[in-house]
Amino acid sequence: MPVLVMKFGGTSVANIDRIHRAAKRVAVEVAKGYDVIVVVSAMSGETNKLVGFVNETSQLYDAREYDAIVSSGENVTAGLMALRLQEMDIPARSWQGWQVPVKTTSAHGSARIEEIPSDNINAKFAQGMKVAVVAGFQGISPEGRITTLGRGGSDTTAVAFAAAFNAERCDIYTDVDGVYTTDPRICEKARKLDKIAFEEMLELASLGAKVLQTRSVELAMRYKVRLRVLSSFEEVSDDAGTLVCDEEEIMESNVVAGVAYSRDEAKLTLTSVADRPGVASAIFGPLAEAGVNVDMIVQNISEDGRTDMTFSCPIDQVKRAEKAINTARDKGDYNFSDLVVDNGVAKVSIVGIGMRSHAGVAAKMFKTLASEGVNIKVIGTSEIKVSVLIDRKYMELAVQALHDAFELEKN
Amino acid sequence: MPVLVMKFGGTSVANIDRIHRAAKRVAVEVAKGYDVIVVVSAMSGETNKLVGFVNETSQLYDAREYDAIVSSGENVTAGLMALRLQEMDIPARSWQGWQVPVKTTSAHGSARIEEIPSDNINAKFAQGMKVAVVAGFQGISPEGRITTLGRGGSDTTAVAFAAAFNAERCDIYTDVDGVYTTDPRICEKARKLDKIAFEEMLELASLGAKVLQTRSVELAMRYKVRLRVLSSFEEVSDDAGTLVCDEEEIMESNVVAGVAYSRDEAKLTLTSVADRPGVASAIFGPLAEAGVNVDMIVQNISEDGRTDMTFSCPIDQVKRAEKAINTARDKGDYNFSDLVVDNGVAKVSIVGIGMRSHAGVAAKMFKTLASEGVNIKVIGTSEIKVSVLIDRKYMELAVQALHDAFELEKN
Repeated sequence: MPVLVMKFGGTSVANIDRIHRAAKRVAVEVAKGYDVIVVVSAMSGETNKLVGFVNETSQLYDAREYDAIVSSGENVTAGLMALRLQEMDIPARSWQGWQVPVKTTSAHGSARIEEIPSDNINAKFAQGMKVAVVAGFQGISPEGRITTLGRGGSDTTAVAFAAAFNAERCDIYTDVDGVYTTDPRICEKARKLDKIAFEEMLELASLGAKVLQTRSVELAMRYKVRLRVLSSFEEVSDDAGTLVCDEEEIMESNVVAGVAYSRDEAKLTLTSVADRPGVASAIFGPLAEAGVNVDMIVQNISEDGRTDMTFSCPIDQVKRAEKAINTARDKGDYNFSDLVVDNGVAKVSIVGIGMRSHAGVAAKMFKTLASEGVNIKVIGTSEIKVSVLIDRKYMELAVQALHDAFELEKN
Repeated sequence: MPVLVMKFGGTSVANIDRIHRAAKRVAVEVAKGYDVIVVVSAMSGETNKLVGFVNETSQLYDAREYDAIVSSGENVTAGLMALRLQEMDIPARSWQGWQVPVKTTSAHGSARIEEIPSDNINAKFAQGMKVAVVAGFQGISPEGRITTLGRGGSDTTAVAFAAAFNAERCDIYTDVDGVYTTDPRICEKARKLDKIAFEEMLELASLGAKVLQTRSVELAMRYKVRLRVLSSFEEVSDDAGTLVCDEEEIMESNVVAGVAYSRDEAKLTLTSVADRPGVASAIFGPLAEAGVNVDMIVQNISEDGRTDMTFSCPIDQVKRAEKAINTARDKGDYNFSDLVVDNGVAKVSIVGIGMRSHAGVAAKMFKTLASEGVNIKVIGTSEIKVSVLIDRKYMELAVQALHDAFELEKN
C-alpha cells in the first residue's frame, strides 16, 4: 500500500470537535487506499500551559525533565485521534515517540531525529492496521529519556516519517489554506501558489512566512519529500493547498515566487571602525556567542583606514547586541566612534528560483521602491532572493508595490 | 541507605504551590539520610478532564488508548516534582512507568503490577541521586503498551515500590491527617488513631472510609509494608498521621478500632423462592456477571420448601440487579413471588481485631442500637467486624451511639 503522512497542528486538534473533523479527513485518504501515518500536535494552548508550569517551578530547569513534561500534550491528542478513528471503524492505534521509537540525539529541547525504524509500524500495517497515529514533537534519546524537537517540531516529525516510510506525500494541515505570494493581510492581491520549490519555501519560511518550520522544509528538501500545506478548516479537494516540491516538478514559474517581510528589525551601525584584517570576526564572534541572530551585514568602503560596519538583527535582540559590542570594545578587541541604533526598520525580500536565470530582477526591485519614494538602507542578496532594509512605515507600501511590479497576482 | 517511599495524591500536587510544599516535605526526609522514592498522582482534576475527553470522543473506547491518554497527567507532576527538587539542590529525576519499568498485566484500565525491577533506580541511587520521582497509576504491558491500575492506583504504585525496594515505610500524603475512629463530619468525638492493623484498615477501606485504596492495603499486608497516612497540609512531626501496620506492632488496642458506614445502600428481597440446592448460585451468579457488587446476604428459614432471600448492594446498581434477576427468572433459572426493593437503607459497621478474643461485641452493638430505637434489617459478620443494615435516617445517630458505647474517644 502507498503510505501518506498527514500532520495536524495545534489549532487543527484544538478541541474534540476539531479532532473529529481531522479524523474525517483521514478517513477520506484511507478510503483512497493509503496506509496513513497521522502526526499530531498538542491541543493549542496545552504546550504553553505546560511550559508555564515549568517556568513557575524552576529557574534553570533540567531540559530532560522539561521534555518529559511538555511532551505529554501530544500523547493525549494521539490517543484521542486513534479512538476517534476506531469509532469510525478504521483500525488505528497511537504511538508515543519512545514506542516507535523515534531515535533522537540527546540535545533535550532541540533534539534532532537520527533514525525512525519502520518495522514496528509496518508490521501493524501488514496486519491490517490502516492508521498509525504518532505523537509529534517527541522522541527518545540514546539514554532512554524523552526528548523534544523544539517549537514547531511536529512538522519535522511528519517529514521525517514521510522520509522513513517513503511516503507518497506529506500533507501539513494548518490554519491557512496554503502558501501565498505574500501576506494577504497586507496585500489584497496576494495569490495562493499551487506549487513552490523547496528552496523558495525555505527562504520564505525563514523570512517570516510562518507556515512551515524551517527545519522541516530543509529535511523535506534533503529527502525529496513532497509537502502539501493545506487548511483543516475547509473542504479539501485533491488539488487544494500548496505543494512544496522539487523545482523540476514546477514546469514554468514566475521569476519571483513571493514577497516576504519581517517587521521588527533593527539596524546597528558601528562608525569609524579601524579597518584591519580580523575586525569582522572580532565584531561578529561575540555577537554570535551572545545569541544575536545577525542577518544582513554591510561594510562601507574604507577611508583613512577606518570604515563603518552596519548589520541588522531582530529588534528584541538589540539590548543583547549592544552589551556584547560594548563588552568587546572595553576588552580592547576593537574600537569605533559611535554605535548608532535604528529601531525603526523592516526587511522586505523578493524570492524566486527564476532569478538565477533572469538578470535585472534586483534592479527592477530598486527601481520600484525608488518610484514609490522608499529609501533603501541596506541591501542583501542570495542566489534566489534580494532583501532590503527600509523604514518600517513604508513596509506595507513596499510589499504592495513589489507584488504589483512583478505581477504576482497572475498565475 | 534506607529507602523511604512518599506518595502525594492529587490534592497534594494540585498546583505549583502545593508541589513546592510537597517537595519541602521530601527534603526533610532526604536530610534524615533516606534515599526517597516519591510517587505522584496527577494534579487534581486533570485525570477527570482526560477521561471526559475520552468519553466525548468514543462510546466504546479501546482501553489501550484510554490508558495512553489518562496516564499523561502523572507524567507532568512527576517532571515538575523532579524539577522542584533539583531547584532545592537535591539530585532527583522523574521516571515514567515504562522507564522503570513497572511491569503489569495487559488488563488495561485495571492492570495489576507483576514486577518492579529495582536495578535502574538503585543504580542511580548508587551514583548519588537522592530522589526518584515516579509517575503513579501507570505501568507497561508485556506488549509494550501503557497500562493504568484503575482509580486510586497511585496508592498501589507506592506500596508496590515500597515492597520492591524493601522500604522502611511508605508515607501516603493526602488531604486528611490520618485514619479516624469514625467520620469526624458525622461524629465530633471521632479520634485520630495512632496505629491501626492492616486487617482493620482493610475493613475500614472497603466499608467506605475513603482514605486508602483497598488494593493498596491488601498489598501492604501481604508484603508487610508499613504504611503511614498523613496530611500534606499540616506541619508534620515524626509521629504524625496514622501508622497502618502488622497487628503485632500494636501493643494494646481497643476491642473496636472504628465505626464505618456506607450511606447509599439498597436492600433487595426475593420472596418465596423455591429452596432447592443450587438456588443461591442461580441467583447470585447472574448478578456477579452483571457487575453487581452484592454485599450482605441473608436467607430466612425455609417454610414449605420456600424461603426469602435478601441481599444488599450499592444503590446505583439496583437497576442492573433488577434486570439480571428478571432475565434469570424469565429464563426459568429460578422463581419467586415478589422482588421488594428498599432504597432507603445504610450500612453501619464496627471493626476491630480485638473482637476475635472478646465475646459479646455484637450483642453490645445490637443492644446499643435497640436502646436508640434503631431497627436492624440485616446483620452480617466477619471475624473482625459486625455490619448492620438500618434505615438511612438513623445512620448518623447509630454511628454516634456506637462510638460512645465502645468508648472510641478514649485512647
